[in-house]
Amino acid sequence: MSTIRFRDSSGYVRTGTLDGETIQYGSSEIQRAEASILAPAQPSKIVCVGLNYADHAAEQNKSIPDRPLLFLKPPNAVAHPHSEVTLPSGKDRIDYEAELAVVIDKQAKEVPAEDALSYVRGFTCLDDLSNRDDQNREQNWIRGKAFDNAAPMGPVLAPPTAVPEDASISLSVNGETRQHSSRDQFIFSIPELIEEITTYLTLEPGDVISTGTPSGVGPVSDGDTISISIDGIGTLTHSVQIPD
Amino acid sequence: MSTIRFRDSSGYVRTGTLDGETIQYGSSEIQRAEASILAPAQPSKIVCVGLNYADHAAEQNKSIPDRPLLFLKPPNAVAHPHSEVTLPSGKDRIDYEAELAVVIDKQAKEVPAEDALSYVRGFTCLDDLSNRDDQNREQNWIRGKAFDNAAPMGPVLAPPTAVPEDASISLSVNGETRQHSSRDQFIFSIPELIEEITTYLTLEPGDVISTGTPSGVGPVSDGDTISISIDGIGTLTHSVQIPD
Repeated sequence: MSTIRFRDSSGYVRTGTLDGETIQYGSSEIQRAEASILAPAQPSKIVCVGLNYADHAAEQNKSIPDRPLLFLKPPNAVAHPHSEVTLPSGKDRIDYEAELAVVIDKQAKEVPAEDALSYVRGFTCLDDLSNRDDQNREQNWIRGKAFDNAAPMGPVLAPPTAVPEDASISLSVNGETRQHSSRDQFIFSIPELIEEITTYLTLEPGDVISTGTPSGVGPVSDGDTISISIDGIGTLTHSVQIPD
Repeated sequence: MSTIRFRDSSGYVRTGTLDGETIQYGSSEIQRAEASILAPAQPSKIVCVGLNYADHAAEQNKSIPDRPLLFLKPPNAVAHPHSEVTLPSGKDRIDYEAELAVVIDKQAKEVPAEDALSYVRGFTCLDDLSNRDDQNREQNWIRGKAFDNAAPMGPVLAPPTAVPEDASISLSVNGETRQHSSRDQFIFSIPELIEEITTYLTLEPGDVISTGTPSGVGPVSDGDTISISIDGIGTLTHSVQIPD
């Protein structure tokens, strides 16, 4: 069953389980529509993977990488489901990127691929928002990828067993589908990613690995509503505000 | 007066002020040599600056950048003063880089340069350890710069007024000087760095900006002792262990 983090009517942060549209927590329950849903984890870092879908690599006319392309989003990038996220102003192009995100359950260092799934708490949706103006001008993608609100995530944490190996992943802008692919296009599997990352970096409970985006990336505009759906997880929705 | 974070004999984490070799905290005191000294901050992110010394840019045969070159070290990179840090094995070259690090005092977003120093808690020393084998092979420096223990920092937090504009910064390996320069070689000033970074990223209390390294970078070997000294701060010492 999926877990969900939310703020109750008193302002307390709670974690419950989602049964249909009802959130159960302790001996209480609340309707999902009445709760203020929060990002399902508080990562100390988000380790993102570039070019991890065969269809996206083909679209970008790039060869398949020989090891995962990695970059970082710090905690200031996290944004909550249903939020209106404020993005950098004055840029020609900021893009959406639908991704499946893995949330880590326990401290992980030098974990071999065959043990990796025992370190996973669950899966969620993540929008890897990307400021292309700056990304294309800098060696490390800080202004391009690490800005405030660059990683809306949620709405729930689904158990890995609930998400099929060929789960579809799709993204719409204002209801119009722009990305539609499947997890079976992954170049590096989730266990392979965990092994590679933890060779260098210790992952902490709540840390996130975002597994890359499929083909169809494109720009967002002020006022757009973005929805990302993954089989077995559900739909992350957020809107976008870009100040003048 | 400088502040210092340490673990007392009961294992509690304390912050005190350093008066000579005596640490004062509450109504107690302890000799510095008896305390287990900790990194002076617990950043949610370290924002590092590349090529920020005119002498280092010349040494690397690189032109002066038109805006700061930024990259990130996540919290797993932090290591404590006097620690023996374990570095990635099997690499041809891991380098030391002496840096002056700025610790942020209060949440900072879109801070103009003229207000920036009011957001600073203090200055410390940081060793921006760099795994060149991987840094030279990747777009974003994750394996190259974000590995565990890649940022020993300390030993104290000095008030900015204690660190002269032309403070000397030096580094030795096993007692032999390898870097020796001055803060007056900065290409971008600390207020300019804070303005540029907070245009994109919110800095939280305890976050760190590491301001780049001067000329003279070079390799470390298993068993080396590294010391970084900055006028007005003191000396950060750590040793290096590189497993076979």
